[in-house]
Amino acid sequence: MNPIKPAPPLSDENHTLTDSEHIIQALRAGKNKRARKFLSRMHPAKIAAMLERLDAEQRMALWQQIDPALEVRILPHLSIELISQLAGDATDATQPRPEQEHPQSSVNHLEAVRDALNQKKLKRVGKILQRMHPAKVAGLLESLPPVERRSVWSMVDTERTGKVLTYLHDEIRVALALELDLEDLIASAEHLELDDRVDLIQTLPAELGNKLLYASSASQRKQLESMLSYPEDSAGGLMNADAIQIRADVQVSTVLRYLRLLEKLPPQTDMLMVVDRKGHYQGGLRLDSLVTADLHRPVAELMNRDIGGIAVTSKGNEVAQLFQDFDLLSAPVVDEHNRVLGRITVDDVVDLIREDSDRALMQMAGLDDEADMFAPVLVSSRRRAVWLGINLVTAFSAAWVIGLFQATLEQLVALAVLMPIVASMGGIAGSQTLTLVIRGLALGQLQKGNIRILLNRELGISILNGLLWSVVIALLAVLWFGDWGIGAVLGVAILVNLLCAALAGWGIPLLLERMGIDPALAGSVILTTVTDVVGFFAFLGLATLLLL
Amino acid sequence: MNPIKPAPPLSDENHTLTDSEHIIQALRAGKNKRARKFLSRMHPAKIAAMLERLDAEQRMALWQQIDPALEVRILPHLSIELISQLAGDATDATQPRPEQEHPQSSVNHLEAVRDALNQKKLKRVGKILQRMHPAKVAGLLESLPPVERRSVWSMVDTERTGKVLTYLHDEIRVALALELDLEDLIASAEHLELDDRVDLIQTLPAELGNKLLYASSASQRKQLESMLSYPEDSAGGLMNADAIQIRADVQVSTVLRYLRLLEKLPPQTDMLMVVDRKGHYQGGLRLDSLVTADLHRPVAELMNRDIGGIAVTSKGNEVAQLFQDFDLLSAPVVDEHNRVLGRITVDDVVDLIREDSDRALMQMAGLDDEADMFAPVLVSSRRRAVWLGINLVTAFSAAWVIGLFQATLEQLVALAVLMPIVASMGGIAGSQTLTLVIRGLALGQLQKGNIRILLNRELGISILNGLLWSVVIALLAVLWFGDWGIGAVLGVAILVNLLCAALAGWGIPLLLERMGIDPALAGSVILTTVTDVVGFFAFLGLATLLLL
Repeated sequence: MNPIKPAPPLSDENHTLTDSEHIIQALRAGKNKRARKFLSRMHPAKIAAMLERLDAEQRMALWQQIDPALEVRILPHLSIELISQLAGDATDATQPRPEQEHPQSSVNHLEAVRDALNQKKLKRVGKILQRMHPAKVAGLLESLPPVERRSVWSMVDTERTGKVLTYLHDEIRVALALELDLEDLIASAEHLELDDRVDLIQTLPAELGNKLLYASSASQRKQLESMLSYPEDSAGGLMNADAIQIRADVQVSTVLRYLRLLEKLPPQTDMLMVVDRKGHYQGGLRLDSLVTADLHRPVAELMNRDIGGIAVTSKGNEVAQLFQDFDLLSAPVVDEHNRVLGRITVDDVVDLIREDSDRALMQMAGLDDEADMFAPVLVSSRRRAVWLGINLVTAFSAAWVIGLFQATLEQLVALAVLMPIVASMGGIAGSQTLTLVIRGLALGQLQKGNIRILLNRELGISILNGLLWSVVIALLAVLWFGDWGIGAVLGVAILVNLLCAALAGWGIPLLLERMGIDPALAGSVILTTVTDVVGFFAFLGLATLLLL
Repeated sequence: MNPIKPAPPLSDENHTLTDSEHIIQALRAGKNKRARKFLSRMHPAKIAAMLERLDAEQRMALWQQIDPALEVRILPHLSIELISQLAGDATDATQPRPEQEHPQSSVNHLEAVRDALNQKKLKRVGKILQRMHPAKVAGLLESLPPVERRSVWSMVDTERTGKVLTYLHDEIRVALALELDLEDLIASAEHLELDDRVDLIQTLPAELGNKLLYASSASQRKQLESMLSYPEDSAGGLMNADAIQIRADVQVSTVLRYLRLLEKLPPQTDMLMVVDRKGHYQGGLRLDSLVTADLHRPVAELMNRDIGGIAVTSKGNEVAQLFQDFDLLSAPVVDEHNRVLGRITVDDVVDLIREDSDRALMQMAGLDDEADMFAPVLVSSRRRAVWLGINLVTAFSAAWVIGLFQATLEQLVALAVLMPIVASMGGIAGSQTLTLVIRGLALGQLQKGNIRILLNRELGISILNGLLWSVVIALLAVLWFGDWGIGAVLGVAILVNLLCAALAGWGIPLLLERMGIDPALAGSVILTTVTDVVGFFAFLGLATLLLL
């Protein structure tokens, strides 16, 4: 398989090549889409001749790219033995599947597809893919290792590639977009809604993104450019410029007539935007009130004024919160003069919410949620190495503290046995407070007004739990080493560490947030450093003072 | 303030009490709603007399429960000094706020409300609340400590209490529901959509939930009971029984006429369910295709057959996946015979998604996402204690391993200094694999078909990173202790531990899932135990073999 890099558009290619040579080349490069393109231009007889000419493996590879319609026109031109050889595959049937499938059923897909791949039955792969929803195809692609992913990708119909790309996580999206010939990429982008196209352009390398941008019609390009001017995670970046605008003074009957003229409404349209002559937003007219209203009533009486316009500059999470709190299906996006620029639909908000929560989870472990789970080992290793390196600082600072007390440890090796307990209790308790605060900040429930109350609670909790567990652990230690001194020191150290843990778990995220760093990303590492250092220091320090 | 327990309904109360005595009692108990109820029955003159009679504090408390309309009728009956005393408060103005507010503006709310509370200006609290969306009120309530929360809750208008309850997390929802007089609770439930009411009933204590159930009209009760029969986190539990059904053979004009007769459609209606005579689901007719279609076309031509019915037994996360993948706004729920039972709307799915991700985040830290952030310290302490106790097992098993090598440690105290590094590197590396697998399982991207591929990758990564970091750390150790032996042992131990970490991080969640335990809940604890035990054992064991 060739490394991931943009395939040169056909025009750039060496023109002395014949179609059949092009096809062989394309097949070798795994560019089945391109192969199919050439096949569609050739006369069945020529294809038949080609099949006769090729060796068994190439022949099968080529045959896999010939669709049933073409097959029947080629077969007459083939020798008997070839027909018998290939026809077996031509009539290869897979059990039919219902149109829309149950999400869990993708289990079968993954295995079915991988089987077909192993048998080089790309045709069957193509058939399976055609029955799947683009979202499911995307999920399938992400579940495959890169090499298999590329050959499956090469079997996705061009008109669906665009939609599939929009469902992929960034890294895989870029990789597969680069797999396509430029003309195919452009073609597939044309099937996309503008906001999806903006997404795609934003994730692609700038140079390629621009090619996509300039390939769009002039009018669309203007819209795209304005949408691209907003940050990806803002109302502007989420919005689609397809809001339908009507006037407040017209009657229901007029609106209905107007809509029938449009024949089709943009997807996910649940309401029309009511604007004045200058395009200033006035309110929303829900389709459900439109269809139930008396034909002669004016829009002004029916429109819902409670649905406020979202400022184009609002942050993504603010938009998500709005949609959640007000159960919106779509909402108008307005500029600073309250003029309607476009609308945001709930489907994009749902994706946003899922991604945000996903990110928090992954970041806590120092992972990138947009990364490819099956990225080449070397790539992933480099990414993970960084995180381990950061953690190394934590580990060594802990070791350094212990190093300060080597003399003590030499005299009382029991301390070495017990010291991990102090650190780990602190780490666990601290991460509970940390998580609570991080989530409270995310939900906007922790604010200047109540942040101190939480601190007091957390301190109170850590005192109670500290007392409880320090006594239990101390007693266990006494039982183990038969030394009351060690037990006492251990207990006190744990109590101290739990208090610091609460303080750190509370303070670190607030501090990070003020510094503009995502608490979910750096919080836990810093916390562990604190609880380790404090834990070891308190335990070994106290021991040095009291037990020697 | 009285402890949280259901207030006895008025009827049960001691009947010899006069209204004014009832009021004093209610005020003392912080049951302002009840106080207002009694006030509304009394003659202004009587209230005035009562105000004169009370001491300053009680008087102010009572005054806070008198709405402006009543004020003007009472003032004439009051003595001059009282008027001057109270009027100052009567004309207490707060700056007006826009109808629908920016989510972030709730910051001001929290502080404004807490100010008002400190000044005992409950009237002002009421005013602020009236301007807020129920969702925002819920957020505000969750941001307050219990005591303040109860007095704010007592100022929420009864007709809005129901909606506010639906936006609260379980624990707080129950607590505040129990604060209400039964009749108020019933009244507030009547303002709710059925699915929200089901939610409420499911979270309340069984006995109280039944009271709510039997308070609803017979027809509703039947629906409620059928909805309650499904698990909360299933399609049946998410659905609402308000789907509008039409026939495939009628014309658009007929449908429109029918809808106008209904006058109002259920909230979040974006499509009508097309059914046959026996109520079998055939497809969905989107409102947007309805309003754009020619009046004489039959529904059959316009309806969308791709939107499949969701089996009433499907799990919540399957439903969420469907909505996400197919960008649904609502979807029909069908029984095993494909008969339409109701529909699920995207707003409930959005909440589901947010809650699920929330849960994963909290569970990883051993927290309950439905718990009250400001629950009494004692309550929270008990919960957290459990988690710390579980972790204690981890800590002691680590200590036990170290204990096996006390003799070694006595001879080579440097080992005690370095051993935490081995454990923590393993823990970090392992939790990365763990998180990756947990998320892959949640997204349904890890399946029998590709789970081994991931293992190989993770092992590969841990080998590469193991080699890299074990060398780095070994060299650092040599520099520190000037002993090549220690460095070598440390390096090898880290390499071994990283490999085990990858294996454990991969295997534990799969094992837990198969055992029906949520990997996010128990995964990290078990993983840490493994990485600690293996880490310490490998390091100290090797040292004992090679360095002594």
